[in-house]
Amino acid sequence: MNKENKIFNDFESHIKTIDEEIKRTLSDQDDLLMYDMMRYFFGYLDENLKKINDYGGKHFRSSLCLYLAEAYGKKKHLVEIAAAIELFHNFTLIHDDIEDHDEIRRGKPTIWKKFGQEQAINTGDAQLILTNLEICKACEGASGLDLLVSNYLNKVFLKVSEGQFLDMKMAELPLNHDFVSEQNYLDMIKRKSAILVSASSGVVGVALGLPDKETKALEKYGLNLGMAYQIWDDIVSIWGKEEDTGKKEAKDIYEKKKTLPILSLYGQINDDEKQKLENIYNSPKIARKADLDYIYSLLNTYNIKAMTKQKVFSYIEKSNSAIESLSVSLSKKKFLLDINRDLFPNIEEVK
Amino acid sequence: MNKENKIFNDFESHIKTIDEEIKRTLSDQDDLLMYDMMRYFFGYLDENLKKINDYGGKHFRSSLCLYLAEAYGKKKHLVEIAAAIELFHNFTLIHDDIEDHDEIRRGKPTIWKKFGQEQAINTGDAQLILTNLEICKACEGASGLDLLVSNYLNKVFLKVSEGQFLDMKMAELPLNHDFVSEQNYLDMIKRKSAILVSASSGVVGVALGLPDKETKALEKYGLNLGMAYQIWDDIVSIWGKEEDTGKKEAKDIYEKKKTLPILSLYGQINDDEKQKLENIYNSPKIARKADLDYIYSLLNTYNIKAMTKQKVFSYIEKSNSAIESLSVSLSKKKFLLDINRDLFPNIEEVK
Repeated sequence: MNKENKIFNDFESHIKTIDEEIKRTLSDQDDLLMYDMMRYFFGYLDENLKKINDYGGKHFRSSLCLYLAEAYGKKKHLVEIAAAIELFHNFTLIHDDIEDHDEIRRGKPTIWKKFGQEQAINTGDAQLILTNLEICKACEGASGLDLLVSNYLNKVFLKVSEGQFLDMKMAELPLNHDFVSEQNYLDMIKRKSAILVSASSGVVGVALGLPDKETKALEKYGLNLGMAYQIWDDIVSIWGKEEDTGKKEAKDIYEKKKTLPILSLYGQINDDEKQKLENIYNSPKIARKADLDYIYSLLNTYNIKAMTKQKVFSYIEKSNSAIESLSVSLSKKKFLLDINRDLFPNIEEVK
Repeated sequence: MNKENKIFNDFESHIKTIDEEIKRTLSDQDDLLMYDMMRYFFGYLDENLKKINDYGGKHFRSSLCLYLAEAYGKKKHLVEIAAAIELFHNFTLIHDDIEDHDEIRRGKPTIWKKFGQEQAINTGDAQLILTNLEICKACEGASGLDLLVSNYLNKVFLKVSEGQFLDMKMAELPLNHDFVSEQNYLDMIKRKSAILVSASSGVVGVALGLPDKETKALEKYGLNLGMAYQIWDDIVSIWGKEEDTGKKEAKDIYEKKKTLPILSLYGQINDDEKQKLENIYNSPKIARKADLDYIYSLLNTYNIKAMTKQKVFSYIEKSNSAIESLSVSLSKKKFLLDINRDLFPNIEEVK
């Protein structure tokens, strides 16, 4: 967490710029509780809807967008685009929390829990609309941006929706269903998560009219970073310690989530083990202690942790090689490489 | 209904054009059940997800948009904009059905009822994103359209969200709450319903670059028509016969909806009557027969039906006067005036 916090310290001024822009956009709207719900979710208001001065939002995707815009020498036009990415990302979280029945996010009640499901659906919708108004705002200041950027980002947004659809679909299917495969899982996280990181960097190329090759390199950097981060999160949610991650230990095993380590495991175990694992995963209840021990012993026997870590490494390497090919200064490259190291603390020690 | 059907006969070719465009957009996407949910909702697929040839969608808002574009001599560029309006309108219905717990729409199970609430939220989101991609598509063919149209429509979309927020807020508050007033009700239906009719006509002015005065007249026409239609619906949902309306008789009274006739009534009755009415409306249960009779007798005593009808008339008149001021041919004006008559069948006989 310390190393991760370091990144956010470096991003501090970008985070501030983005929050100021989002606050400005929200204050341009009518005085309705609906907009306070958004402020609450962003952490600008506390649970009593009183202003908070130090809310500590991290905004990785949008800060990265702004950092890269600056690296190419044009921060100004990208502030609204970065804000749009942040508005969109948080809109997805508002609706995901309803869809996943999550009651707590960032240590506070989720919007649906606090204001009711009906209002939470509608407030999410409004924030998706605000995202598009923010894209329009970005384009007012810069000629030629409009159509390209809106089209680029909305196509990505649609992929994110498709990813969420696929995620819910896979969650419902039994472990032995053909559709529940490692390949489909990778396709799902690509759409649901990685593509928005890809767009956060790629949109800089689109908006600044950089050569196609540069935009593709920016996308390659972000997409592979996004993939690495999602799979790293799968590792952390199975083997992480609560004091390091802030997440409940063995969370994904308790909840019997079919994440990459489980799908890799399922692809390698023998028929008896498959049957046992299916029985555990097909039961609607939370895993029992004995099941938990069995799953961990299988994961251990088949060396799944190290294998999954190798996948993370391979995505980080692809992301790093894309960084090397960017037309930005050496110090900017070094900063991006540092992020790719610091986001995965202690990964070398994982066995 | 016969007269109403006449309008949709006149719009037949527009409806077909819009459906073809929506089908084209959906077929451009990946082959995912998510898009079949949208096709099902539009009526392109039946309950077994088999193709339907004659689905009979009415698409009033989007057809009106296309009709007006044609009236100004430029139908082509507006097809995608009309399709975007239809995509948006149906997105709102997908989410409204969840928020209102409605299980049936157009005689079929709603999306959330058929595919689950979680998928219905996500599919609605995807359709709102497709709406914006459709706006981008509209702009590819026409220079200068992009930013203006996207900004114009998304601002309207945001108002629709605000309207839905206000609707749910008013539904929760007791009848004697200050916020539950006739004026706030009119503001709510303006945002929730009328403004999208206003935008369906007004966007033609924006997209075709008509003079401001013309765009304002188009908006005035649509906004007042939208207000009239919503209030007419309030009348029909209290006094309409099932064979005329297809709706359950006395529906809004059974469900104790605080629509305009009830708010007008509440503003006029004496304190004793107020207390009785509040007691009925504050009980969470559906209205009993005795309550129903009491409410109808009050509405009758205070002549609410005729009063509400006068309000509808006054909005129709404003809409008609805007039609007279449009720079379109006399035959087009006559057609629009005919719509404003046919949408309100037998209104003269209402007493």
